[in-house]
Amino acid sequence: MSDPSYLAALEFLATLLPELAASEAAQPVRPPVPLDRAQALVPPLGAKARPLPEVLASLRALALNTPLTTTPQFFNQLFGGRDPAATAADMITAHLNVSMYTYKAAGPLVLVENALIEHMLAIAGFTAGEATFTNGGSLSNLLAVALARNEAQARRGDPDPDPDQAGQWTGKWALYTSAEAHYSMPKAATILGLGRGAVRVIEIDEQGRMIPAALAARLRADLQAGVRPVLINATLGTTVMGAFDPLEPIAEIANQHGIWLHADGALGGSLLLSRERRAQLFAGLERCDSLTWDAHKLMGVPLTCSALLLREPGLLDRHLGEDAHYLFQTDEDQLNPGLRSIQCGRRNDPLKLWAAWQHHGDDGYDARFAQLFALRDHVVARIDAHPDLRMSHAPQSLNVCFEMDGVSSEQLCLQLNQRGLAVVGYGRVNGRDTIRLVIANPAQTSAVLDQFLEDLVATGSELRRASS
Amino acid sequence: MSDPSYLAALEFLATLLPELAASEAAQPVRPPVPLDRAQALVPPLGAKARPLPEVLASLRALALNTPLTTTPQFFNQLFGGRDPAATAADMITAHLNVSMYTYKAAGPLVLVENALIEHMLAIAGFTAGEATFTNGGSLSNLLAVALARNEAQARRGDPDPDPDQAGQWTGKWALYTSAEAHYSMPKAATILGLGRGAVRVIEIDEQGRMIPAALAARLRADLQAGVRPVLINATLGTTVMGAFDPLEPIAEIANQHGIWLHADGALGGSLLLSRERRAQLFAGLERCDSLTWDAHKLMGVPLTCSALLLREPGLLDRHLGEDAHYLFQTDEDQLNPGLRSIQCGRRNDPLKLWAAWQHHGDDGYDARFAQLFALRDHVVARIDAHPDLRMSHAPQSLNVCFEMDGVSSEQLCLQLNQRGLAVVGYGRVNGRDTIRLVIANPAQTSAVLDQFLEDLVATGSELRRASS
Repeated sequence: MSDPSYLAALEFLATLLPELAASEAAQPVRPPVPLDRAQALVPPLGAKARPLPEVLASLRALALNTPLTTTPQFFNQLFGGRDPAATAADMITAHLNVSMYTYKAAGPLVLVENALIEHMLAIAGFTAGEATFTNGGSLSNLLAVALARNEAQARRGDPDPDPDQAGQWTGKWALYTSAEAHYSMPKAATILGLGRGAVRVIEIDEQGRMIPAALAARLRADLQAGVRPVLINATLGTTVMGAFDPLEPIAEIANQHGIWLHADGALGGSLLLSRERRAQLFAGLERCDSLTWDAHKLMGVPLTCSALLLREPGLLDRHLGEDAHYLFQTDEDQLNPGLRSIQCGRRNDPLKLWAAWQHHGDDGYDARFAQLFALRDHVVARIDAHPDLRMSHAPQSLNVCFEMDGVSSEQLCLQLNQRGLAVVGYGRVNGRDTIRLVIANPAQTSAVLDQFLEDLVATGSELRRASS
Repeated sequence: MSDPSYLAALEFLATLLPELAASEAAQPVRPPVPLDRAQALVPPLGAKARPLPEVLASLRALALNTPLTTTPQFFNQLFGGRDPAATAADMITAHLNVSMYTYKAAGPLVLVENALIEHMLAIAGFTAGEATFTNGGSLSNLLAVALARNEAQARRGDPDPDPDQAGQWTGKWALYTSAEAHYSMPKAATILGLGRGAVRVIEIDEQGRMIPAALAARLRADLQAGVRPVLINATLGTTVMGAFDPLEPIAEIANQHGIWLHADGALGGSLLLSRERRAQLFAGLERCDSLTWDAHKLMGVPLTCSALLLREPGLLDRHLGEDAHYLFQTDEDQLNPGLRSIQCGRRNDPLKLWAAWQHHGDDGYDARFAQLFALRDHVVARIDAHPDLRMSHAPQSLNVCFEMDGVSSEQLCLQLNQRGLAVVGYGRVNGRDTIRLVIANPAQTSAVLDQFLEDLVATGSELRRASS
């Protein structure tokens, strides 16, 4: 294809992307765009065609007014930074535009995906297992619940799980997850037909971890009442507090009753690559049936890149593999990942992770997490030493939750953003709104974090004076 | 961010992307890469870091060996071509890396999505409705079934649908879809806990359309047996034959029993923009409850870009909206699309479609489809006129299924690909393997199609001679 308009678009990008990078460097925090100004950036769609240069100019204006997620002053979500290899791979993905269902359609890119899956399974200790990429942690979790539910239902009486009959059952079912777990659990319950009422919310300790005794008690009561457990979800890195549920005692309970144990490591899964933390945070992982692992969070690749790993092979094919003669025609099944995926047409998410991982190696990610944990310790020490700042809990991973005395966390976060100083969110910990500082960007430094705390205290003091 | 390694990656892309485009122009069909050569392109992942230039070189080698989906000789899937505005927007998306849940995180890009949704709803005639973007037609269909199931269950007795209790029900449920429907229907049934056995496969006529009388008969039998219908799925553009199920008589049946009617327009939905065809293909759409519409197929934007449109508002929030204090904090709900989406973290799929649509306008898409239909008529006339070629059925949309006398369609497709002449798939029609020629690329011409038929006949004649 020598389409001149595509070459014009590439030329435009060659100018725009460095301009965007320079703009980010010059002003790392963009205060929120007022709605009327945002509206003006979005010309309506209609019958008439617009020349390509005009459309590209609209894209440029939008890009220059989009919140920045990649600069070191962005602490607001569970991702941050920009990986050069991964971003290049994602742009190549847009150019290639293959669909990841068959070797016929995607060629060697299927082998990239398979290599990645093999490496991730080995790291998780699920060496005999299988995996599939989904479009985010919510969908990985949903798929885990669906597989667990189908398997649990099939085991009721049938000698062999029969997906053809899955769900044609009666009775009450429940799933178990902590009070700090991600909202994708109730969402999955609603979508999968279990209902939000099926979600048992288990109490947490002061660090945000599920209390195994509370889980055991709730399970006992349910079993006595004839409720059937679908799955226990242990969160590895909760959204607000960054807590890791204790896998060993939870696995003990799950195994005792033969219940599927899922580990939601959407956030924390990547920390498997931290050699120092791994043993402590993941003890018991080998007893889990499934693991959600989002590489688009702590591994720094563009959204989305999430995998669902399964300890035992065969379930994906049994519950997702459909005959499709027009699609799955030649090549062995191992080369047709569409047989094991929740999607049919599927964008190539693995390539960008593979590229980043090639660039950094396990060693590089290990070093990254060591650095991020060191920065966390640095910030926590600063907060502990400051008379006006108060930690909400001792953090287990990279979320640091704290408050400033006498200042609304919400107001403080909004002000920091309005003033172009930082993007940081707030979350509720033990019933109080706290500032949630996420340290996820490998470009992070202690100088940036010191400046952040300085700006925060100065802004907070002003707010305090204004309100008194 | 003035990260020099990112600038190096951009420089690499500035050279690579035109090189890839030139390579496509020079050799529009890449014969399949043998497995051993593909393996050599995928260095294993391991502990050690690799320098960025080496990794980028790996990406280049992979890209130069990936099957081409964008050239006019690619007729193999339901998409084709490369839109310059959309591809540029997708690359900008990789650079910006925002998540589409809130105005806080995505700023004006939320308004882009809302503008697109409004325009699509207006075109579908669902002006009072709502919509959400998913990661492909399979997930849009899955979501439609989930919403229909929750609503059907809730209506059983409850005055107000209660998603908290969804699914805690008893009894047999079923969904209805044609024998030519996409495999995402049984896949959704397995995932959603209805089971593959819940899928009623309704007979089709010789053009691949669901036979309403057969649907009515099956429904009657099920209702008499106490089975509860979840949803009727009418396909607008089946995968192999491109058939449009007749919406009017199906809606009549659905309305009579108060059953959710879903239109799977993953392929065909885009043809709503064909002013000439619209009335004929979509009569009755206003009586459907939901519509799947994949823009990554006939509208030419990179994968994935799929929307689920709903005629009535409120269901997405009721069944997908979860409290998440740390996320949905400020701004009105209309600006927080995460409340209505199946995902939490979500890549920006709408921007690329918005850019393409700005560039072409409704007028441009109307002209595109007029051109594609004219090319289809041209090809069909050629096939009809050729003594060795035989149409399988009169096509309703842009899939042309035909056979060559005395030649295996499978062998013929493989040979065309091996010889670098064309990429085309085969599919089963009325029990016979036929060549499925998909005319989806706006860069298509009658000269390319004539050459394709010439190559096909020559190759087929050779195969016939060799086997006789």
